[in-house]
Amino acid sequence: MPAELPPGHLRRGGRDARRQIRTDRTTRMLPALKRNLPLVEPMTPEQIEKIDNASMAILEEVGVVFRDPQAIEDWRRAGADVRGGSRVHLDRGLVRELMSSIPASFTYHARNPANNLPFGHDHVIFVPMTGAPYLRDLEDNRRSPTLGDLATFHKLAHMSPALHSTAHHIVEPMDHVVAHRHLRITYSSMKHSDKTFMGMTTSPKNAEDVMEMCAILFGADYMETHPVVTGNCNGNSPLVWDEVMLGAMRAFCKRNQPVLCSPFVLGGANTPASTAPAVAQLNAEALSALAYTQVVRKGCPAIYGHYLSTVSMASGAPMAGTPEISLMNFMIGQMARHYNVPWRTSNTLGGSKILDAQAGYESAATMMAVLLAGANYLWHSAGWNEGGLHCSIAKFVVDAEQCAMGYRMAEGIRWDDFDEALAAVRDIGPGGHYLGHPHTQANFQRAFFIPKLLDNNSIEQWIADGSKDTTARALIEARKILEAYQEPKLDEAVDEALRDFIARREREIPAVDALNNEY
Amino acid sequence: MPAELPPGHLRRGGRDARRQIRTDRTTRMLPALKRNLPLVEPMTPEQIEKIDNASMAILEEVGVVFRDPQAIEDWRRAGADVRGGSRVHLDRGLVRELMSSIPASFTYHARNPANNLPFGHDHVIFVPMTGAPYLRDLEDNRRSPTLGDLATFHKLAHMSPALHSTAHHIVEPMDHVVAHRHLRITYSSMKHSDKTFMGMTTSPKNAEDVMEMCAILFGADYMETHPVVTGNCNGNSPLVWDEVMLGAMRAFCKRNQPVLCSPFVLGGANTPASTAPAVAQLNAEALSALAYTQVVRKGCPAIYGHYLSTVSMASGAPMAGTPEISLMNFMIGQMARHYNVPWRTSNTLGGSKILDAQAGYESAATMMAVLLAGANYLWHSAGWNEGGLHCSIAKFVVDAEQCAMGYRMAEGIRWDDFDEALAAVRDIGPGGHYLGHPHTQANFQRAFFIPKLLDNNSIEQWIADGSKDTTARALIEARKILEAYQEPKLDEAVDEALRDFIARREREIPAVDALNNEY
Repeated sequence: MPAELPPGHLRRGGRDARRQIRTDRTTRMLPALKRNLPLVEPMTPEQIEKIDNASMAILEEVGVVFRDPQAIEDWRRAGADVRGGSRVHLDRGLVRELMSSIPASFTYHARNPANNLPFGHDHVIFVPMTGAPYLRDLEDNRRSPTLGDLATFHKLAHMSPALHSTAHHIVEPMDHVVAHRHLRITYSSMKHSDKTFMGMTTSPKNAEDVMEMCAILFGADYMETHPVVTGNCNGNSPLVWDEVMLGAMRAFCKRNQPVLCSPFVLGGANTPASTAPAVAQLNAEALSALAYTQVVRKGCPAIYGHYLSTVSMASGAPMAGTPEISLMNFMIGQMARHYNVPWRTSNTLGGSKILDAQAGYESAATMMAVLLAGANYLWHSAGWNEGGLHCSIAKFVVDAEQCAMGYRMAEGIRWDDFDEALAAVRDIGPGGHYLGHPHTQANFQRAFFIPKLLDNNSIEQWIADGSKDTTARALIEARKILEAYQEPKLDEAVDEALRDFIARREREIPAVDALNNEY
Repeated sequence: MPAELPPGHLRRGGRDARRQIRTDRTTRMLPALKRNLPLVEPMTPEQIEKIDNASMAILEEVGVVFRDPQAIEDWRRAGADVRGGSRVHLDRGLVRELMSSIPASFTYHARNPANNLPFGHDHVIFVPMTGAPYLRDLEDNRRSPTLGDLATFHKLAHMSPALHSTAHHIVEPMDHVVAHRHLRITYSSMKHSDKTFMGMTTSPKNAEDVMEMCAILFGADYMETHPVVTGNCNGNSPLVWDEVMLGAMRAFCKRNQPVLCSPFVLGGANTPASTAPAVAQLNAEALSALAYTQVVRKGCPAIYGHYLSTVSMASGAPMAGTPEISLMNFMIGQMARHYNVPWRTSNTLGGSKILDAQAGYESAATMMAVLLAGANYLWHSAGWNEGGLHCSIAKFVVDAEQCAMGYRMAEGIRWDDFDEALAAVRDIGPGGHYLGHPHTQANFQRAFFIPKLLDNNSIEQWIADGSKDTTARALIEARKILEAYQEPKLDEAVDEALRDFIARREREIPAVDALNNEY
């Protein structure tokens, strides 16, 4: 397969073609958002320095544990001060030197080049949630997910204009043996969509399998110079990185693929109970992993990441949509920009057990904060509820529309029709109305976003329509989307090669293995 | 009654006193929020000038209709160019001169001086919704409201720490004759809470009655130098102010009481279908009314206001929580600050028929936008759903908690324990946890907001608790709040004088009258 050409092409005609044209209008992917709104930056330059200085002091004086012999050997070779076998003390000079080779931006490639994404600076991409051990299905039943359910989510992601990726294991396919899941998950991402996707990091060997599958899809040489897949590596806050994550990280870095370096923060439980000091610790953790990516391969792309919640001191439960999460997102955005690296955070998080008002409040508060914090990679942008324990089909489609709305807001103000519209004010004059004016007729479709899943009809109409709540309406919409879905076919030879690879690996890998969750 | 002393005092002892102490801890009003977050200001100074210039051109060249002989006479006397009997063309020099005497800030006085509020600049106050012709009650039944229901809402507002006002007719007391409602509504606001409140503007005479009642409560002389009540006057966009609103406005201005000058904007229907031109028109409308307040009484307080929605071009329905509403709020905030006048907008608006996910998404998106837009007076901060057609008890208490969360976010970052908390990072080191650390123990209560109405328990616990959705939990909480409510008694002589006044006016006013809605 020629590396520079899209590996899959649509072949269709007649009725299928007409249906495709109809659905394209509403399902064609939006380009990566280019923000045109000022960000919320609550820290002064001095306060940024204060956090930076505190983080560097943590790295120098407290150190970070890398529970992984290979990483320790790498760090020793890189000149770090390793104490007690695994505690790495990092001099700020070394950290800054290593950080300096991380690309500030790059292009994230999809198998359909039309879906390539600029990554970093003022660009934003929306990526669905992943890692849910349960789903709420098309009947809103909460149950164990299957590979078929994962395919359903990949199809919904493919059809949602504001979602830029199908991610990977949106739900855990529990009907498939753990040791082989990464293969089936990756294939599902590749097969059901031609948008970008993520790669599993559940073990170093699994990550290597993902790299092999990407090499089949994109070409190994192509990957050397083209990021085609993101992988997430979680830290164990406070200040620990483990062998599984570090091994997976190396698998990605060696192939020049970008890793999200994500401290896993439960504010108050594994950080101090205070926002600014929690950010200082998180920042130290992120820097230690970002620096390590450059030890593995100088110049490879890497992303400042984190999973961030605050903990209820009453129950120990992680919370979503709280004011301190918003504040920390504003601050972390400033830190990532201070280091001039791309930044990943989490979007539309909900802690509710169902798609009720709570989920709405939490999700919208999170989205507004992370858009205005200036994140580049908005993970968990669709479906996340119950603190990530389930992915809801209903919430998935509602969140996807909310992403389209957030996208519109972050595009900022249009001024291109200002004079023309002011002429309409003169035409209409006091007491008139604008609905019939030519400017309104020409502009209403782009002027004001009309959400499909928010019902603004009269209560009489709403009752006549069956008194459906958001969940009921969203599930109807999800069925419609799935009905309209058409598979962007993989090239047949590539598809065969991927299937052959999976078959071989499934013969090689023992069918019992441990599962490492990602968040 | 001495004007400078609070007119009502609590008299209680024994069991009542103990109950009061317990409830005070969770119900004591938060002071007016003092913002400490940077605002979202998408317009450059040149773009602010562009809007200003367009608005001034509208005022000069298109003019504004004041459908009110008294206003026309006032405008002629002030030197405006009146054409065709009611169309007032306002020179920008005259507008700027009049605007210059509007106070940039003032103190909004409550009958309990502890509840006085700084108004303007970087202060924010949260005011419940008003004007709902229906309520969703303690059983979540949608029905016609009574004066008893209004009292329930006034009690809930009194008990909500982040609500700074009881407003006025949160719901329309349909069991009471229209012509007398303003008296009973005002009395209910005054009686059930010692926070600030709003005054009815449903007719000039009604507004004068409210002024009389305020004079009884606060003293007429006191009012001359102390704002004690806000009144809202809606414009009929595009570019019309009517006799009812203008007469009510004069009643407030003459007593030196602040009026919210609020164009009523349905974006796309009564404005151009484009955000920046819609803001230019809204701004012209607001300026024309703000200027008129200074014609009526130079130096009286006045507030830049608006009600703002976008219209679904599919159904004609007003929408809430849309991206363009957020953008317009950001812009209008910049305009109000450009003119150095306090600014009112609307908070937590929902278009849903029930308190479901839709209501949550819409309300939270609105709150985040208006807090970061820098509004001073966040009206409709609790209860608003169905586009304002009902006030929901469940939503009221959820929104009130969301206001407390928004309040916390807008307070910004605390740095006072930074060094102490970093010492904890050294104490804990890699791999530890913070829950038992003295810094955590000392700080967890203030560190991270723990919402009472958002359930973050495990699904097992949630099921054991009855699988209650947000609405069900909120209604239980509302009952608890009402059980704990204690009336902050009015001074007996004042109470008697108010009742006498109401009795007299109810004898004088014919029991049939027109109802003018406010938004």
